[in-house]
Amino acid sequence: MPPATPVRVGIIGATGYVGGELIRLLAAHPAVELVGLTGRERRGDPVGSVHPHLATTELELESELDGEVDAVFLALPHGTAAQRVPELLQRGTTVIDQGPDFRLRDAADYPRWYGFQHPHPELLRSAVYGLPELHRAELVAAGAARAAGTPALVGSPGCYPTATLLALAPLARAGLIADVVVDAKSGVSGAGREAKAEMLFAEVNESVRAYGVFSHRHTAEMEQELGALAAGTAGDTGTGDPAGVRGLDFLPHLIPMTRGILTACHVRPSRPVTQAELDTLYAEAYGDEPFVTVVDTPPATGHVLGSNHVRVFVRSDERTQRIIAIAVIDNLVKGAAGQGVQAFNLVFGLDEAAGLGALPLAP
Amino acid sequence: MPPATPVRVGIIGATGYVGGELIRLLAAHPAVELVGLTGRERRGDPVGSVHPHLATTELELESELDGEVDAVFLALPHGTAAQRVPELLQRGTTVIDQGPDFRLRDAADYPRWYGFQHPHPELLRSAVYGLPELHRAELVAAGAARAAGTPALVGSPGCYPTATLLALAPLARAGLIADVVVDAKSGVSGAGREAKAEMLFAEVNESVRAYGVFSHRHTAEMEQELGALAAGTAGDTGTGDPAGVRGLDFLPHLIPMTRGILTACHVRPSRPVTQAELDTLYAEAYGDEPFVTVVDTPPATGHVLGSNHVRVFVRSDERTQRIIAIAVIDNLVKGAAGQGVQAFNLVFGLDEAAGLGALPLAP
Amino acid sequence: MPPATPVRVGIIGATGYVGGELIRLLAAHPAVELVGLTGRERRGDPVGSVHPHLATTELELESELDGEVDAVFLALPHGTAAQRVPELLQRGTTVIDQGPDFRLRDAADYPRWYGFQHPHPELLRSAVYGLPELHRAELVAAGAARAAGTPALVGSPGCYPTATLLALAPLARAGLIADVVVDAKSGVSGAGREAKAEMLFAEVNESVRAYGVFSHRHTAEMEQELGALAAGTAGDTGTGDPAGVRGLDFLPHLIPMTRGILTACHVRPSRPVTQAELDTLYAEAYGDEPFVTVVDTPPATGHVLGSNHVRVFVRSDERTQRIIAIAVIDNLVKGAAGQGVQAFNLVFGLDEAAGLGALPLAP
Amino acid sequence: MPPATPVRVGIIGATGYVGGELIRLLAAHPAVELVGLTGRERRGDPVGSVHPHLATTELELESELDGEVDAVFLALPHGTAAQRVPELLQRGTTVIDQGPDFRLRDAADYPRWYGFQHPHPELLRSAVYGLPELHRAELVAAGAARAAGTPALVGSPGCYPTATLLALAPLARAGLIADVVVDAKSGVSGAGREAKAEMLFAEVNESVRAYGVFSHRHTAEMEQELGALAAGTAGDTGTGDPAGVRGLDFLPHLIPMTRGILTACHVRPSRPVTQAELDTLYAEAYGDEPFVTVVDTPPATGHVLGSNHVRVFVRSDERTQRIIAIAVIDNLVKGAAGQGVQAFNLVFGLDEAAGLGALPLAP
Repeated sequence: MPPATPVRVGIIGATGYVGGELIRLLAAHPAVELVGLTGRERRGDPVGSVHPHLATTELELESELDGEVDAVFLALPHGTAAQRVPELLQRGTTVIDQGPDFRLRDAADYPRWYGFQHPHPELLRSAVYGLPELHRAELVAAGAARAAGTPALVGSPGCYPTATLLALAPLARAGLIADVVVDAKSGVSGAGREAKAEMLFAEVNESVRAYGVFSHRHTAEMEQELGALAAGTAGDTGTGDPAGVRGLDFLPHLIPMTRGILTACHVRPSRPVTQAELDTLYAEAYGDEPFVTVVDTPPATGHVLGSNHVRVFVRSDERTQRIIAIAVIDNLVKGAAGQGVQAFNLVFGLDEAAGLGALPLAP
Repeated sequence: MPPATPVRVGIIGATGYVGGELIRLLAAHPAVELVGLTGRERRGDPVGSVHPHLATTELELESELDGEVDAVFLALPHGTAAQRVPELLQRGTTVIDQGPDFRLRDAADYPRWYGFQHPHPELLRSAVYGLPELHRAELVAAGAARAAGTPALVGSPGCYPTATLLALAPLARAGLIADVVVDAKSGVSGAGREAKAEMLFAEVNESVRAYGVFSHRHTAEMEQELGALAAGTAGDTGTGDPAGVRGLDFLPHLIPMTRGILTACHVRPSRPVTQAELDTLYAEAYGDEPFVTVVDTPPATGHVLGSNHVRVFVRSDERTQRIIAIAVIDNLVKGAAGQGVQAFNLVFGLDEAAGLGALPLAP
Repeated sequence: MPPATPVRVGIIGATGYVGGELIRLLAAHPAVELVGLTGRERRGDPVGSVHPHLATTELELESELDGEVDAVFLALPHGTAAQRVPELLQRGTTVIDQGPDFRLRDAADYPRWYGFQHPHPELLRSAVYGLPELHRAELVAAGAARAAGTPALVGSPGCYPTATLLALAPLARAGLIADVVVDAKSGVSGAGREAKAEMLFAEVNESVRAYGVFSHRHTAEMEQELGALAAGTAGDTGTGDPAGVRGLDFLPHLIPMTRGILTACHVRPSRPVTQAELDTLYAEAYGDEPFVTVVDTPPATGHVLGSNHVRVFVRSDERTQRIIAIAVIDNLVKGAAGQGVQAFNLVFGLDEAAGLGALPLAP
Repeated sequence: MPPATPVRVGIIGATGYVGGELIRLLAAHPAVELVGLTGRERRGDPVGSVHPHLATTELELESELDGEVDAVFLALPHGTAAQRVPELLQRGTTVIDQGPDFRLRDAADYPRWYGFQHPHPELLRSAVYGLPELHRAELVAAGAARAAGTPALVGSPGCYPTATLLALAPLARAGLIADVVVDAKSGVSGAGREAKAEMLFAEVNESVRAYGVFSHRHTAEMEQELGALAAGTAGDTGTGDPAGVRGLDFLPHLIPMTRGILTACHVRPSRPVTQAELDTLYAEAYGDEPFVTVVDTPPATGHVLGSNHVRVFVRSDERTQRIIAIAVIDNLVKGAAGQGVQAFNLVFGLDEAAGLGALPLAP
């Protein structure tokens, strides 16, 4: 049942792939009125001039948000959101930041991984890491504060961390990870819409390559959250490494597809674990989750295309004494815009799945 | 506003690509209760075992429809539906046939193009060619008859004819086609889900080929409908060729993508036509259509992926004295399941767009 | 048998896709010594830094050709080659221009189709249109002149014209084309290596679109050569249109693959023609051609990938009174670099197939 | 310099993808006469009817090899070659088996991994594991024996082991692997040409999935060879595990491309290792190899497409105390047919690179 008054929502940075995906989801959201879309030097341009697939929405782009909004989604390059968020919060606007500027708790991680000094480290403490499956209570609490007058700030997770954390959370929480290697495969839409020669069709097609070897920025998020889970305190930034996950070996690959992330987590368990034990752990973790399904055959990214769904698979092996945990997502939905909407729903007291009901598209 | 009592719907042939797409659309349709899905030797199998992307629906497949249904969608090989439809109609069930068995008015076209003698030629007269943009009044009339006790029979158009007819209808109706060549490009999902070596990824990828040269079965539909449009009598089966479209040169191609059809219609006009005249013709034809948008740059199939949308483009050229008309659709939605649902909505007096609201997915 | 002294060859514009393909072919050419590769601001860069697949060649790029070369291949933007060719010819260097600057005989076609005034119209008369299957005698004659001291100038054909002309030449020469529509499909490597947002993988993948509607520049070449064939005088620039091919309706499409062009030519014949007659015509035209094979099932671009091969298919249809002629090529080999090498071989008196022996790569 | 008398070669199982690739390479091999190609029930069929890209070779397929051959390549399902090899050897024919039947030294591995009892375990001792970079001396020795009258038997390595062993060999040989996870990505041509619904384009495109979790058959080969390398005795079958590689965690993935394998090896080193040390190790290992190139940016499979080339990359990381080693190959060339030809060349005393000179094809 939509609320009598829809939530007025703006999108800053509506011209990229995440921006387009936010429009696609929010234009059809039953409790949202999309009142402002901004893109640089885009005064009055129809959305269809930038996103031809959205031409029928008849929305327009503006250079600046004008008019009051209750919430704003930011889809901006890293470092940019950090500059703009304080003013938005001061105006009383709740912020869902799709970028990395409010994901990390330790301000020192920003110069280390992103190469900039965070201009507002004080906000890192109050921001919520917007992965509902791990931080739902905090999102709901931020929503309560919002209703009481304090706008919320959500740092929506990166695409790789989303898949990886959902694959590993039950193991991390149970203290079962002695060692882990995360090997991920992604479609190229995660690289954004800027024209780069290396992302041309002719360069990407019929080829696969690793990148960001030992240096991908998402490593920081994964270490933070896995450490917290293992420490038994989500959000904790303790310097210990009870989970054996500091110094995470994370290796992403670009594969010739547009959407989708598959993350394969190779775990050396801290003690022998049976498949039955894993099945119970994962069923307990995800049995009530609206978007996570545990499956017993290796899932394909094609099974979740265009949806906010997650498929998680876990297998224990006696011969090798290892566990492999796999998760698949659509990087632009559960890995970006859909996840932002899911957190937004929680913060605004809406049905968590509102606007996210689309089934995956296959074949 | 959904009706108090949902329409009970069954799908016969739910395991192929069109069947899966029907489930995807109808499971989320606000006025439908999906009460039966059948597939050969599929007693109690969860839908997810056949369509992993639909695992979360928790529907099951059966060998036979059991229980009453108000309407049934058939997604069966050609020749099969013709056998089963009479009994369904006798039971009072409205039938939306996604195959070709009830698309052609002239029974002689079946042995000629499909290689079988139609077992129920008397039904060809009462069946409606389910392209709402051309036959909306007939669909509504069939719906009125249905409400009065006579179940409706809809022959849902083929994928190529859908795109081609929507590209050409305004020209045909205006008697502007002196000669036309239709050159179409399709993703491979139209070839179905049966294992054929020529449809293996390794055979299709990084390659394009024509097929069905001068012999594709959809030619019959296109000639029938273009002829009728030109004759000024939609549905007419007159043997004349006022439109110059008998002996249609239709050439389809398979291209390395899964979904999407683009049809390029090369027209030699019967008299000189200006672009302004074309713009008016097309605006009048499609201005009120819920799913057809006329665009002024050549559209891509990627602009309609996963949706029931159509983009139509038309250009007149002075130098060559020709017209090119292009349409793009998603072959599994507007070219199959979505179109079936659109016709179903009209027959059941529902909002024509019910269950078809999804925006296209891009990138 | 390689000549005692290899031909010294340079490539100007070696960093793009055609440049890379020229290196791939010429580095393995038995009669060629590759003595100079140039790219802007590329002083001493290893070829592998630009073309990683060619890293093992251990060649280097330079900013300028230095040292003597017998022949130079130009892979430059249109308008650029026209500026540089006179000086190269004066130095006695034979030029194979892969761009359009020396393909057209009528200087007026350059402002009309390419938007620049040709700076050296006098060279258009002496340049040879480098399609060996149509202009072999001229290439050999230019080779004889070269041996006598006059360097040759070859305008190597465009990718679309190559496929189209080989599909249609036997019909055009026989005066059988009353009307023709050319509908072509291309992989995206033809668009070059420059970073353009519309050529990103995420934009091209799983989508097809037409472009250059009624305005593609290659139309000029096709009209010139088809007209000449029909006039019975290859190379003729007469203004008449005996072939009905002035005002050619040529429509190219971009499809989601890297290499390959398929051109489908829809012909209205000037008189009824049997399939047997077509078979004879095409067998006579191509029976002795080293790279053209006439096939009797519709060919796929995947059948010629990576090779200089061409497959041609022609079909006459009684019902529609039409002919469809199809040709497939690899746009970077027979449609660009390979064709250049083939012409080069003829001009230097080498085996026409030298360096072009690679069989196609499939799957 | 080709030998006066070419080697007469046959291919048994010429109709699949590996068979086609063998024809492509051997038809152009300067020292080979291709005298027999067999495929089931293929009496007199032209090669082009099965491999359209090879139509110009004008070779034919037969049901049985007839006539004398010096060597035969087998491209057969596992278990089949083991039946046929003894008779071939008895006739004096050297055998290059592209399948797994002669790759493993321990006969017990066949029932364990392949589900069949090896019918000729005595041959496993004399067969050579045909990875020239690790077993060149043995191949040359087998060639000397062949010249003296004893035909050679080569078990040509699997595609995944080829890439993995070349990535890891220098580390294994130096005893530097304390623990290793191998995560591989493959194009689908490795799955062969049989029609399977799961390999349809529409199923594979725009999707990635893991398969063979903890159970892929190639694991056996990798454990055997890595163990031998670590034991300091290539070819050793000792039961110990000095390398920590028994119980190998090997996880392959299918990605939407036709050719190419990338294997990422995540190594926990047995002691701290600097990048400089790794650079030296790999330079020493591969500096003289004709087909292996060590690169310092992560390689893409597109860099080796269509060639017998291998690119190897290795990186040590201080923060995580890990090593990542990556190799890319074309699975049908260096991972199958090309590797077979390379071993064949060594066994017949030819230039190791004969017939394998093609540069990679890009883009």
